[in-house]
Amino acid sequence: MKTFNKEELAGMDRSMRINLFNSITGIKPANLVGTISAAGQTNLAIFSSVFHMGSDPALIGMILRPHREVRRDSYENMKETGQYTINHVPLHSIESAHKTSSRFEKEISEFLECGFTEDYIEGFKAPFVKESRIRFGLSLVEEIPVKHNQTTILIGQIENIVIEAALLDETGRLDLEEAQTAGVSGLDSYYQLVKKTTFL
Amino acid sequence: MKTFNKEELAGMDRSMRINLFNSITGIKPANLVGTISAAGQTNLAIFSSVFHMGSDPALIGMILRPHREVRRDSYENMKETGQYTINHVPLHSIESAHKTSSRFEKEISEFLECGFTEDYIEGFKAPFVKESRIRFGLSLVEEIPVKHNQTTILIGQIENIVIEAALLDETGRLDLEEAQTAGVSGLDSYYQLVKKTTFL
Repeated sequence: MKTFNKEELAGMDRSMRINLFNSITGIKPANLVGTISAAGQTNLAIFSSVFHMGSDPALIGMILRPHREVRRDSYENMKETGQYTINHVPLHSIESAHKTSSRFEKEISEFLECGFTEDYIEGFKAPFVKESRIRFGLSLVEEIPVKHNQTTILIGQIENIVIEAALLDETGRLDLEEAQTAGVSGLDSYYQLVKKTTFL
Repeated sequence: MKTFNKEELAGMDRSMRINLFNSITGIKPANLVGTISAAGQTNLAIFSSVFHMGSDPALIGMILRPHREVRRDSYENMKETGQYTINHVPLHSIESAHKTSSRFEKEISEFLECGFTEDYIEGFKAPFVKESRIRFGLSLVEEIPVKHNQTTILIGQIENIVIEAALLDETGRLDLEEAQTAGVSGLDSYYQLVKKTTFL
């Protein structure tokens, strides 16, 4: 085993350190966040920081980084409409999904630019991703500034869920292997998920 | 596609709703959190809510749920020593790792009870998991209460990293497939990770 102490980590090459710190927590979920501005401009951005925060009420957190302008459009749209969608990235779309992390002008929709299809449900403004087999819509309910860096934790409450029926069993469990949902490590490595077991 | 609106979600059977809300975000990292009390009693608990919050400083978040007494021991130890470790769960240990979520008395160490081996590095109090091939030690730096439920976001700063050298490439990326690191969905389903691609 190789041990890196604090000084060795600080002394590492910057890009190596960023890759290592971004992958050290293990696998992360690959999700596309869909939003729309008050003027009707849609936006789509990949996030690997979506996490479950509680089931009653159903709260979902995600991290907004300060210097990632590419994701500021998502945030501005969330503020304008109060809504957003989270859509699992299917394995066959990882290249297109990853491309949404490039810098596009605000008036360009990543849906069109990266080859995804907008899908809507009645009574909810934010666009879903039609290519995604597990998707859900949220209302933004809380924003928490983090003192130790300039990130913000965005908390949303689940308003609706859209899933391919076969992926949900009668106990409420989802089959992520069957859904072909992707995982991500660090900033740019994508993984397939193979189900091993459920401990009942 | 099947759509559930807010009323349909609220009307779902409680255990089905809990399973669904816990798995809706996609794959989660399976990590064991190691702690030690001031009196020297060790504790080990599985967490699926560990997430990256930034690389400079290197901050890692996790969610502490209010009613999970099993994880209060971890929290009390973190407060006593200011330190904890996060250890990837290897696939061959998912059954033992899952078992740490059972209720054990405070004076019982889940290391011993669930078949894991304590491992220490010089100058750091909290115990690492010897069976884990990717592990890191943290100092607790910030605690954030969430208004919309009774959870707390715990934020730690990375102090050290211990990894099997072959799992880290020269760019700082970790191979989670080679590491046999497990992912988790919902409360009790475990997944193997198969690397598909890195977009450079």
